[in-house]
Amino acid sequence: MSTYGTLFRVTTYGESHCASVGAIIDGCPPGMELTAADIQTQLSRRRPGQSNLTTPRDEKDLVHLQSGIERGVTLGTPIGLLVKNEDQRPHDYSETDLYPRPSHADYTYLEKYGIKASSGGGRSSARETIGRVAAGAIAEKYLKLAYGIEIVAFVSSVGKIHLPSSLAPPSLVSSGAEDDDEVQDALSEAFQHLLKTITREEVDKYPTRCPHPETSERMTQRIIRAKDAKDSIGGTVTCVIRNVPSGLGEPVFDKFEATLAHAMLSIPATKAFEIGSGFKGTEVPGSKHNDPFVNRPDGKLGTATNWSGGVQGGITNGEDIYFRVGFKSPATISQGQKTAQYDGTPGELAARGRHDPCVVPRAVPIVEAMAAIVVMDQLLIQNSRKTAASLLPPITTLPPSMMQPKNSKAA
Amino acid sequence: MSTYGTLFRVTTYGESHCASVGAIIDGCPPGMELTAADIQTQLSRRRPGQSNLTTPRDEKDLVHLQSGIERGVTLGTPIGLLVKNEDQRPHDYSETDLYPRPSHADYTYLEKYGIKASSGGGRSSARETIGRVAAGAIAEKYLKLAYGIEIVAFVSSVGKIHLPSSLAPPSLVSSGAEDDDEVQDALSEAFQHLLKTITREEVDKYPTRCPHPETSERMTQRIIRAKDAKDSIGGTVTCVIRNVPSGLGEPVFDKFEATLAHAMLSIPATKAFEIGSGFKGTEVPGSKHNDPFVNRPDGKLGTATNWSGGVQGGITNGEDIYFRVGFKSPATISQGQKTAQYDGTPGELAARGRHDPCVVPRAVPIVEAMAAIVVMDQLLIQNSRKTAASLLPPITTLPPSMMQPKNSKAA
Amino acid sequence: MSTYGTLFRVTTYGESHCASVGAIIDGCPPGMELTAADIQTQLSRRRPGQSNLTTPRDEKDLVHLQSGIERGVTLGTPIGLLVKNEDQRPHDYSETDLYPRPSHADYTYLEKYGIKASSGGGRSSARETIGRVAAGAIAEKYLKLAYGIEIVAFVSSVGKIHLPSSLAPPSLVSSGAEDDDEVQDALSEAFQHLLKTITREEVDKYPTRCPHPETSERMTQRIIRAKDAKDSIGGTVTCVIRNVPSGLGEPVFDKFEATLAHAMLSIPATKAFEIGSGFKGTEVPGSKHNDPFVNRPDGKLGTATNWSGGVQGGITNGEDIYFRVGFKSPATISQGQKTAQYDGTPGELAARGRHDPCVVPRAVPIVEAMAAIVVMDQLLIQNSRKTAASLLPPITTLPPSMMQPKNSKAA
Amino acid sequence: MSTYGTLFRVTTYGESHCASVGAIIDGCPPGMELTAADIQTQLSRRRPGQSNLTTPRDEKDLVHLQSGIERGVTLGTPIGLLVKNEDQRPHDYSETDLYPRPSHADYTYLEKYGIKASSGGGRSSARETIGRVAAGAIAEKYLKLAYGIEIVAFVSSVGKIHLPSSLAPPSLVSSGAEDDDEVQDALSEAFQHLLKTITREEVDKYPTRCPHPETSERMTQRIIRAKDAKDSIGGTVTCVIRNVPSGLGEPVFDKFEATLAHAMLSIPATKAFEIGSGFKGTEVPGSKHNDPFVNRPDGKLGTATNWSGGVQGGITNGEDIYFRVGFKSPATISQGQKTAQYDGTPGELAARGRHDPCVVPRAVPIVEAMAAIVVMDQLLIQNSRKTAASLLPPITTLPPSMMQPKNSKAA
Repeated sequence: MSTYGTLFRVTTYGESHCASVGAIIDGCPPGMELTAADIQTQLSRRRPGQSNLTTPRDEKDLVHLQSGIERGVTLGTPIGLLVKNEDQRPHDYSETDLYPRPSHADYTYLEKYGIKASSGGGRSSARETIGRVAAGAIAEKYLKLAYGIEIVAFVSSVGKIHLPSSLAPPSLVSSGAEDDDEVQDALSEAFQHLLKTITREEVDKYPTRCPHPETSERMTQRIIRAKDAKDSIGGTVTCVIRNVPSGLGEPVFDKFEATLAHAMLSIPATKAFEIGSGFKGTEVPGSKHNDPFVNRPDGKLGTATNWSGGVQGGITNGEDIYFRVGFKSPATISQGQKTAQYDGTPGELAARGRHDPCVVPRAVPIVEAMAAIVVMDQLLIQNSRKTAASLLPPITTLPPSMMQPKNSKAA
Repeated sequence: MSTYGTLFRVTTYGESHCASVGAIIDGCPPGMELTAADIQTQLSRRRPGQSNLTTPRDEKDLVHLQSGIERGVTLGTPIGLLVKNEDQRPHDYSETDLYPRPSHADYTYLEKYGIKASSGGGRSSARETIGRVAAGAIAEKYLKLAYGIEIVAFVSSVGKIHLPSSLAPPSLVSSGAEDDDEVQDALSEAFQHLLKTITREEVDKYPTRCPHPETSERMTQRIIRAKDAKDSIGGTVTCVIRNVPSGLGEPVFDKFEATLAHAMLSIPATKAFEIGSGFKGTEVPGSKHNDPFVNRPDGKLGTATNWSGGVQGGITNGEDIYFRVGFKSPATISQGQKTAQYDGTPGELAARGRHDPCVVPRAVPIVEAMAAIVVMDQLLIQNSRKTAASLLPPITTLPPSMMQPKNSKAA
Repeated sequence: MSTYGTLFRVTTYGESHCASVGAIIDGCPPGMELTAADIQTQLSRRRPGQSNLTTPRDEKDLVHLQSGIERGVTLGTPIGLLVKNEDQRPHDYSETDLYPRPSHADYTYLEKYGIKASSGGGRSSARETIGRVAAGAIAEKYLKLAYGIEIVAFVSSVGKIHLPSSLAPPSLVSSGAEDDDEVQDALSEAFQHLLKTITREEVDKYPTRCPHPETSERMTQRIIRAKDAKDSIGGTVTCVIRNVPSGLGEPVFDKFEATLAHAMLSIPATKAFEIGSGFKGTEVPGSKHNDPFVNRPDGKLGTATNWSGGVQGGITNGEDIYFRVGFKSPATISQGQKTAQYDGTPGELAARGRHDPCVVPRAVPIVEAMAAIVVMDQLLIQNSRKTAASLLPPITTLPPSMMQPKNSKAA
Repeated sequence: MSTYGTLFRVTTYGESHCASVGAIIDGCPPGMELTAADIQTQLSRRRPGQSNLTTPRDEKDLVHLQSGIERGVTLGTPIGLLVKNEDQRPHDYSETDLYPRPSHADYTYLEKYGIKASSGGGRSSARETIGRVAAGAIAEKYLKLAYGIEIVAFVSSVGKIHLPSSLAPPSLVSSGAEDDDEVQDALSEAFQHLLKTITREEVDKYPTRCPHPETSERMTQRIIRAKDAKDSIGGTVTCVIRNVPSGLGEPVFDKFEATLAHAMLSIPATKAFEIGSGFKGTEVPGSKHNDPFVNRPDGKLGTATNWSGGVQGGITNGEDIYFRVGFKSPATISQGQKTAQYDGTPGELAARGRHDPCVVPRAVPIVEAMAAIVVMDQLLIQNSRKTAASLLPPITTLPPSMMQPKNSKAA
């Protein structure tokens, strides 16, 4: 359905061609300073028309807050908000009356609902993500204020162009020889450093949002080539979440990475997700892949490496959480496509809509938003448990080894 | 939490060293023939001790049905079931009193709960999956009877050994040249044929559950090598779901692939998920990646290729659904590991438990089970919508192009 | 939280003094004709300023539809809607800066959230119910079109003035002697007839919405007396739901009456709920209280009496569902009240806000709305089960007595 | 469905004639001492065969703990438990093959599921409540240890015999003259004292569980009279919850009283619920019904009276919570009943099963259990909010009157 979350709950409405898109965000902690500007920043990073790499559809995407805030402070009650649809031009899509666009949602929405919206793909529209980005901005403001949590996403590949090996997530690093675990499969120090230091300001220096000058320039050329060819190209977004307390994630069905995968695969055009070593972790033997524990400077336990991506047994361990999301090449292209009409008649469809040749630069704030929503919800759930347990009388019958040490990183 | 699903709902309990593990399965349709044997088959495919590739821990894993069935027929009420823990040997784990096992769940469970079970990792135990496999067996019996749905998973890689290119899922196929979309990136015909024809009987002919003799043999050697080296190795499981009606998946947060990813990443040791073209789909240009519509022999719309993996816009389109799940190399190895104790003291841990050097062969029925649970729940939700819509008076004011054609593949 | 429902899901936002109040209604069946007028009718029955019996606060309460509908037909996607707050006058409440209003929500909202909205009671405002009434109007349009379901509520008592015994719900009928089960406790024929025939048009003939001229007139005088005395008075609303199929209600926690009670007690100012015979059913011996089965003219089973109120074992039986909801006397009165300030200082509070001396006339459409929402959600859930069961092969091994007869009243 | 709760979650299985009944309790705080004896106490108060007032069906109802506890301490993981069905005698019900028992669940279960269990009413069996009572015992152990919360229920009426006016809940007190708000409608001091002091030990001194000797004796005679007449009689249970922190209950749909009503009306045979003044509160004018605030000895705000029943605006205010639940006269009686068979044929059914002539004495621990579950779940949710809010930087821009005072009663 259109609701996500247990204690921090986001419900969205709206599609491409209706009056507005919006959301109700329920469960925001009371007593937090919050203004439209806090939300607008991320909406503007998401909106179309930012550069020549994105769709020329022009929407200012100004957020209108409706409730849940007084004198700039959250009340704890639901925050209603909306963004008007201004530049609608429904006629762009008229040919879709006859043809379901290949690999788009036109056909499946019709199969699901038995009725077709004029926009064809209904809620699969990228505009639906506005509500998510707004909700995410609220969540991450809280996470920053209360825990110092930082969430930064960036583009790690466009088509076959990816960050250089030293800066790439594990799965983008080729390991060379096949069937040979003797090959060195080390987790790149430079990549781990990138995760610890990357900022949104750095990311936004590049139109591609890939924080590496040469790679970004090659990606730009690749996207322009796709655009010129009336074609499209996909890419991957890598995201890091820093300073998350240990202990988040609910065994067994709502493991941290399971809810994160759920959230990421709910973003339009996504096809793949991996956390930490990801698919690479299927190739590296356990003896190398295991992250040894070490005593950290603050006296808490940490891990020497971080193949795990900050999650072990479905629960956060206090290390940086990093993951990668794959976005397919957009389905809407402006070259002719041989395909069939709804009634089966073969023919050629020439889409003329305004679309992004590559969605990953604009997907960056959406990935951050969904990550913030997931962390927020899991944090609220775990907070409840910790508070509840802390009120119990101490157990004197258990050996000390069974009890949590004082210097825990838990929330 | 320990509950999954909306209308078909599975709740599990139990860990490695308690009296039993079990589940309550709520929402099974009434009037279906169901016996313990239906469930036992999949439990036995999951149980340890099946071959020299798996843990020697010996559990018969006999299911005991408690409720919800009379005279071999489901009543529609919750099905309670349990499997006793027999071969417990808690002392195997005694050293874990001092050391959290690296990349295992010992540390994070302690951080989460503030108390440590004798088994260390608590619910992260593979035994917890028994309840899922039982629930999945019930779901897939229904899906088979009512829709002819077939679910078959198989091992697609162990370490760096994977199925030959022609039979491998898209992401396991190297595309050759970098930064060149002129390179041919076609979806393998042989792989698509494999998806359409593979059976569990065929899969079970191989101890690795990789249905290709030479590859299976190499995988076997790879696993034995890991075992002999007191090490471990990961792998991937690919799964196909055939004959799923179009229209499943709930916009926007519960897209079909989002719930599937959630379910798969909730299985212990998983790190990665991709559906259809997956990460490969980020590299293939839209003009090649789009699946053109064609008229099928039965008069319904189908697609000529299936990069989409049976899902478009988050909704099933009636084509084969296929996806791949990455399982990391198991954390528990029997060689010494330099690490730190709970209190930060550096030292060396030598685990002596009985464990699988590679989990993917036994993971096959677990992947199938979670897939069945997801399809079942989504099907029940969509069934409700279709039935509700069918009772409305026909709309005469809409152009025919806005209404679903008669020859829909929808449920 | 601010979300209700499983498959038909309503999420509301907004309080008395923010920009707007609104709702997102998710799960409305696609393909239903729906216009703003369908919703406005019930909003206008709920809005303040309808007569001299209600608050003079003047709000037109015009609904603005945002999404989910095209060309007057539902798409199956979420319906976003809002109503602007126009006549806000926040200063009316200024004294509440010092005093929590007795028996109002000022104090508890502050305890819950640690922060106080200028309106004091936050979401406990009657304006929050606008979203519910809108959602209910959508639900009942579907229920009427697809099942002929009719929902009619009316005022059954104001203070101690209630409908005459022959027309009153069981609990409002005095049984005379105490401790004597020989006394005749029959269910009134006239009351049962009223349930079968009452319409909204009839109810709306009376400013009190009590469909009995003499009683309505006495209630009017009672309310005016409360108003003149700067006091308030409570009352009860009785509601009937006709033509509900048998089989609705989910064992065991979501029995039909349990979800109905939940929904009704979520309406502001409610303190009591009873279904069918209600508290009266605790006094009538089983031999009289049991509803004997009879063969109905349409060949289906019915019951000769209806003490059960249309629900048995938590599941609807196809008979009229009736229930009664108690609304306390409103907390806000315009006479001085001795009480204490937030800091404990004793004093006297004189509220000067505009308020209803009696809420039950305006509560009628709210009760209807919540009833519609409950029936809608339960119907969608049961529809799914019935459809799922209908696709299974018939069971030949069971005696016919175990299977549902063909002439069932089930949906 | 068979699951209740958000953070403290109970899922039950089982009916009258299957192998066992049981539950999975998820979300119990870790680190709490818990043994089978803690649970057994309440199960034994619920079990049949306690006195000559209850069914002679003899079940020891011994609980078997399966998981979630080690060395007598909770792990925070799901607690699986079960109670075997020993004294089944399915043949007692054989005549129900032809006849649906009037006002029982036989007919509606068949309509719902299309298949009939041998026990007829399936999950509507009183044995289903075993899982609830076990879950409630776990919840109330926590509530007692962490908050000193006490929950005590008692029988307030059997048929028309009720506690004397001075000790009765408001709705059981007749107010004398009709249509006259001048009549004194005071909340009984003695009743409020009873709420503050009543204990389970006191309640259990009486076979009826009505803590007033003369009334209990009259109730006993009334029940025996029903038994001798092969008839049945209903009654009401009143329950008080003491020491609940302020701030529990979730606006707007999950108000405290709404979830409480939901929980109570999910108990078999219930028809009515009221909290605080209940239906009586519809008759008492606001000026009398409002509870003035007063400064309590501990420096916190309290109320001078407690018509509200501890809940205002759907949120607890720290005062005693009290409510009343109506249980109808049991449907199963051993005298002949004229009714119809499943196929419509008129006839006479003579039930011969073993049943309670009056369920309220055994309902007492069930009401307590459901109350504990509701408080527990609401407490965990509110705990999360409080913890989250406490981590935010203080707001300096708000007037102090908008912020919660230091001496709050909130959790």
